[in-house]
Amino acid sequence: MSTSRIEAFSDGVFAIAITLLVLEIHVPERPEHGLGRALLDQWPAYASYVVSFLIVGIIWVNHHAVFDHLERADRPLLYLNLLLLLFIGLIPWPTNVLATYMHEGGADERVAAVLYSLTMTLMGATFGALWVYASRHAGLLRDTLSREEIATRTRRFVIGAPLYALTVAVALVSAPLCLALNALLAAYYAVPAGGAMLHRRV
Amino acid sequence: MSTSRIEAFSDGVFAIAITLLVLEIHVPERPEHGLGRALLDQWPAYASYVVSFLIVGIIWVNHHAVFDHLERADRPLLYLNLLLLLFIGLIPWPTNVLATYMHEGGADERVAAVLYSLTMTLMGATFGALWVYASRHAGLLRDTLSREEIATRTRRFVIGAPLYALTVAVALVSAPLCLALNALLAAYYAVPAGGAMLHRRV
Amino acid sequence: MSTSRIEAFSDGVFAIAITLLVLEIHVPERPEHGLGRALLDQWPAYASYVVSFLIVGIIWVNHHAVFDHLERADRPLLYLNLLLLLFIGLIPWPTNVLATYMHEGGADERVAAVLYSLTMTLMGATFGALWVYASRHAGLLRDTLSREEIATRTRRFVIGAPLYALTVAVALVSAPLCLALNALLAAYYAVPAGGAMLHRRV
Amino acid sequence: MSTSRIEAFSDGVFAIAITLLVLEIHVPERPEHGLGRALLDQWPAYASYVVSFLIVGIIWVNHHAVFDHLERADRPLLYLNLLLLLFIGLIPWPTNVLATYMHEGGADERVAAVLYSLTMTLMGATFGALWVYASRHAGLLRDTLSREEIATRTRRFVIGAPLYALTVAVALVSAPLCLALNALLAAYYAVPAGGAMLHRRV
Repeated sequence: MSTSRIEAFSDGVFAIAITLLVLEIHVPERPEHGLGRALLDQWPAYASYVVSFLIVGIIWVNHHAVFDHLERADRPLLYLNLLLLLFIGLIPWPTNVLATYMHEGGADERVAAVLYSLTMTLMGATFGALWVYASRHAGLLRDTLSREEIATRTRRFVIGAPLYALTVAVALVSAPLCLALNALLAAYYAVPAGGAMLHRRV
Repeated sequence: MSTSRIEAFSDGVFAIAITLLVLEIHVPERPEHGLGRALLDQWPAYASYVVSFLIVGIIWVNHHAVFDHLERADRPLLYLNLLLLLFIGLIPWPTNVLATYMHEGGADERVAAVLYSLTMTLMGATFGALWVYASRHAGLLRDTLSREEIATRTRRFVIGAPLYALTVAVALVSAPLCLALNALLAAYYAVPAGGAMLHRRV
Repeated sequence: MSTSRIEAFSDGVFAIAITLLVLEIHVPERPEHGLGRALLDQWPAYASYVVSFLIVGIIWVNHHAVFDHLERADRPLLYLNLLLLLFIGLIPWPTNVLATYMHEGGADERVAAVLYSLTMTLMGATFGALWVYASRHAGLLRDTLSREEIATRTRRFVIGAPLYALTVAVALVSAPLCLALNALLAAYYAVPAGGAMLHRRV
Repeated sequence: MSTSRIEAFSDGVFAIAITLLVLEIHVPERPEHGLGRALLDQWPAYASYVVSFLIVGIIWVNHHAVFDHLERADRPLLYLNLLLLLFIGLIPWPTNVLATYMHEGGADERVAAVLYSLTMTLMGATFGALWVYASRHAGLLRDTLSREEIATRTRRFVIGAPLYALTVAVALVSAPLCLALNALLAAYYAVPAGGAMLHRRV
């Protein structure tokens, strides 16, 4: 299978998962204190929609950045990518759980945040594994990257899982703080490897 | 990333968001006065489905018209586009809220219309910002447009957010009127910049 | 806009609408007489899923057959296509209504069938209008079709709306018969214009 | 219609069906013994999500492998493919039924597993029929495969339906075992026809 076909299928899953996120924002039913108040009370749904949207969107950007450097794909890479998509496709669910329980407070709120961060950790670990596999196996990567550029990307992508895992620990203390850290992590991956936002090539 | 890839991903989100709109039209449950009557009573759902469908469809047309003039994309443009998609992906939700509360009357109906118009305002503002950014930064736009044509488009796209904001004010008075004005705005953007519907190039 | 882009967007809407149909088949909740019995009792959901799936799939085939003969598109054609997609995107809803009320019997069952047939009629009318517009306006159609072949297609596509409208009348008598006739109509459009199933070109 | 267009449409349905699977994983409502416990109790939902995701993903891989060898498509092939997509699009539903009833035990659990395996059997039978039709009709297949390679694939794809049917029998005894066997079958089809995972071409 050509890498462009894997990309097209992956893009489909990314686009659908990111658009399904909206289903977690509910229509308030029979609000006692007016619709306006009920809408404001739903702030955890908006916050988690925005963070999850940015996470999926930015992974999509990085996914393309990786595939742009791929010469070809073999079956293990194909299945690592399928595993990554399995976690991407899952994201609407922990987002929904977090949106439901974040305004509830108590232990359930923190459990929801743990679930959210755990999903991101697994997703980050799979993304890291995909990159390491691609960069270590002869003939998968093009000659477009220097050894140093490959090393920079390896550091960036391998550190993802431990960083997300750290937010699991934070989730045990505060769900909103955990969500904020997930947003920060997304921002970190939004900036390209070289750091320059105005690069000629995206 | 090539602009064609950004377009393909955006098209996916547009197509999914526009098709998810149908989920806001419910199946009447155990109608007391017959299914026919219950279906007619749901007219706000049909009205908001049609208006939202046209808005998303026409933004899609204009989105392509903009990207057709793009030579390349940089990261800020990429993220402005992601922000636009965040609001596009959101549209099924205010549509659902409006469909639910428009036949209820009272304050909640107007709150729902405000939410609807606010979402469109934010979407319009992001679209305007995306165009302004693209047209002001050297090397992003092709040479296909004259200075005057660029200025025409800037006026058209920058005026979107204030016009949608105006419908927020109308929402405070009447939800159906607000929805009708949103439909009118969609019709305004349906006509191409030059005004001629039978142009050779769409 | 190139016709290939309109096709790609349309394909997206077709693919999503056809896949969303599955959401109308419910998971039986707490069945009194066992899950097996409850699953069998849901036969209207399966029947309407199959018929709607085939209708959307076969329109997709004919949509491509039409666009294959298009040299270019203008704005009216673009908006006729958007209107067609509006009805395609709607199909999961009447399918759901029919699946819910077909085993209920009585007037509601026939109302549901009328809604179903009405949606198909409007969709068929839009498809016919799209073809007529494309074939009557200079420069939209390629030279690949003879006058006679164009006339054959016009007859085929213009007769769609009246035929679907006929099933509205049948819906007033029997919902299952109405659904069966819709399936027959789909079968009629499944056979290509020339009639030969084993044509070299699809 | 070109095979690439059929593939693009099929990819869309595969991508949407695989991403809709997440909708079967519910957000626990008002859990009595805490959210953590309620999340753990949902293990059948996770297990069926993973197995269905892998099955759809791996069919997608094999679907591409088949279409890579197709020179052209005729109408019967097109409709066999549409039938395959009808079952692919259906998969979220039996997955949902199995996820709901697998922790209930008793007869309903086994009925749910039978439904799940039956859907896979029908899907497998259609995939086998599609391959047999393509390989037996002159001019559909390219010259890229030797007679022996064709025979190997025929054996692989024709055996699918009977193997899935076998899991229907197992479903009558144990639902979890049935799900595990479905996962095993997916693993069998994950390995390419030649058996070598590190083939140059995927």
